[in-house]
Amino acid sequence: MRTPTNHETRKKEKDKDSKRLNEEEIIEVIWKILSDFRSQWPLRLSQRDKKSADPFSDDVVWIKDRKRSERLIVAKADMIVSSTDVPKQMSPRQISFKAVTSCVSDFAAKGVKPSFGIVSIALPRVSSTKEFVTGLAMGLRSACLAYRICLLGGDTNESQAETVIDFCLFGFADRIVRRDGAKVGDLVAVSGPFGLQASGLKILLEADSTKFASSNSFRRRAVASVLNPVAKLEVGLEASKHLTSSIDSSDGLALSLYQLAEASKVSFDLDQIPIAPGVEKFARENSLNPLNLALFGGEEYELVCTLNESERKLMESKGFTVIGRVAEEATRKMPLVKYEGKVVPRKGWIHLSRDSGKNF
Amino acid sequence: MRTPTNHETRKKEKDKDSKRLNEEEIIEVIWKILSDFRSQWPLRLSQRDKKSADPFSDDVVWIKDRKRSERLIVAKADMIVSSTDVPKQMSPRQISFKAVTSCVSDFAAKGVKPSFGIVSIALPRVSSTKEFVTGLAMGLRSACLAYRICLLGGDTNESQAETVIDFCLFGFADRIVRRDGAKVGDLVAVSGPFGLQASGLKILLEADSTKFASSNSFRRRAVASVLNPVAKLEVGLEASKHLTSSIDSSDGLALSLYQLAEASKVSFDLDQIPIAPGVEKFARENSLNPLNLALFGGEEYELVCTLNESERKLMESKGFTVIGRVAEEATRKMPLVKYEGKVVPRKGWIHLSRDSGKNF
Repeated sequence: MRTPTNHETRKKEKDKDSKRLNEEEIIEVIWKILSDFRSQWPLRLSQRDKKSADPFSDDVVWIKDRKRSERLIVAKADMIVSSTDVPKQMSPRQISFKAVTSCVSDFAAKGVKPSFGIVSIALPRVSSTKEFVTGLAMGLRSACLAYRICLLGGDTNESQAETVIDFCLFGFADRIVRRDGAKVGDLVAVSGPFGLQASGLKILLEADSTKFASSNSFRRRAVASVLNPVAKLEVGLEASKHLTSSIDSSDGLALSLYQLAEASKVSFDLDQIPIAPGVEKFARENSLNPLNLALFGGEEYELVCTLNESERKLMESKGFTVIGRVAEEATRKMPLVKYEGKVVPRKGWIHLSRDSGKNF
Repeated sequence: MRTPTNHETRKKEKDKDSKRLNEEEIIEVIWKILSDFRSQWPLRLSQRDKKSADPFSDDVVWIKDRKRSERLIVAKADMIVSSTDVPKQMSPRQISFKAVTSCVSDFAAKGVKPSFGIVSIALPRVSSTKEFVTGLAMGLRSACLAYRICLLGGDTNESQAETVIDFCLFGFADRIVRRDGAKVGDLVAVSGPFGLQASGLKILLEADSTKFASSNSFRRRAVASVLNPVAKLEVGLEASKHLTSSIDSSDGLALSLYQLAEASKVSFDLDQIPIAPGVEKFARENSLNPLNLALFGGEEYELVCTLNESERKLMESKGFTVIGRVAEEATRKMPLVKYEGKVVPRKGWIHLSRDSGKNF
């Protein structure tokens, strides 16, 4: 048996790697297998409801209350895994607060008020100390108070190396702001500026935190925006009746825009990207592109939405910024997001993808 | 600096270890912190409802539908972590089937029909292959078909080393068979025999699987009972209106009996432990105690319940075995489970405890 050459080893690794699936591909495989038996489902779903039962179609799932036809029961689960989703500087309290925030942010984008939650927690033995557990509980408590969620219970488990928190949130609604409601001629808007979190994440993930030039106050602000994210719940609930489609931006502005455009089968023409104060300076001083920080970083819990032209003034008065327009129905399968006439790459935070987290 | 003696090292390790919490202690810490703000909860809960919002009090959580006072929305999350809950011989299909089964078994014990579910999955890169993901999806599909659950969607994530599946199950009910309904004079019963799963787990976990003497057919049966567990959903739904209290036995018969007794503030006097066919022979041939296998092994998805004497014949005709009687209200904080007059140790499958899984 001869030793494989470097070239052969690399090729083999590449072949092996190419068989691995990223998050979007995994969902597709699972959903293909599961959708086979939809017709056999015990709950007879109307055509419109069937759409809800498709993880591709939206950020939350919902089902009609069988006995009260107008009301929807809405649910969302979001799993945080310490090795992937948690910078090592995050305290236990911040980790569990973020787990709740991720779910609430999706409810905010859909205009649904959260009601109750369940939490599943897996801890490695090394973290099963009173101090760590108390921190997690304090974070859950603060989050449930802040977002007015009744935490009903949960499950605890043992893991080998990672802390895992899966928060499952429920609520009731008469209507949901879906991903697929954007119409040609609508305006595209966002609830806040972008790029601060991406800057903060760069600072946090760098082994040598002094590598980046930045003022202390910017550094503090950027890092805090990653460690203490807050969902825009009130903003979302208030805005919901004025929006034609909506999504939260936690996987990055560019990916969120694409997901909205794809669900609605339209394209977006953007003429501005609101960049958070200080980000341009930070980017300039560190040879980074501020637009990349804003478009591909993720971790912002803002709303990305579309609205009718007639709602412009009202929504601007509520702090929304119009960033472009719904341009045309896509004639191809692939709707496009363009900024100043140039196509924005479809990338962002996709778990298990080969370049996630290296995008900006 | 001198080198610590062996004795000192051991003591230090013990001190460090003693600060670690097991699953029950973790729940207690979390719940103490969370219950502080119960009075501030947005959903005003009646006194009876408050009890439901306590993970100690039962196996599922429930909340009243605010607009239809008689109906309860019931939920349960169960997290499976590959390094703790999954023997390495389990296929992806079996892993995800088991994740659903764990939740359904709790619904069965409470007499609640499952309606819909959400699943969160974390995969390490090495498992994110089409083959592995297809297996997981096939397991979810079979389970949802078998238990008639509508799977609405979920979340996927990346982990470093472990596969984690958190299944969250929902249903509606007018009534729940609680843990705390056992009355003095009631009979204690189980829906099937015990010990087969513990034998199977011993065979599976042993590095050298030929270590244990057993017939091939027993080995196959014991191993299959661990790899392909099935929840007794129909049995539970049918039995529910005849039971005064109930729990599923997945953490082991002894621990389940204690949890039932503690919630009901009673003690149990048992006069028989039904042992699965073949287990006595397997135990004899391998110098094991068959009673220990039946009491402390876990992994059985049977119902452990109490019922009024008047229901005895009916329940026996449905395959239940009466194993003892609810003896006396506990005068102390610690209700007891006795078998043939001797106290049964309170042990079983408690995550993160120092002796979990070494109990039988």
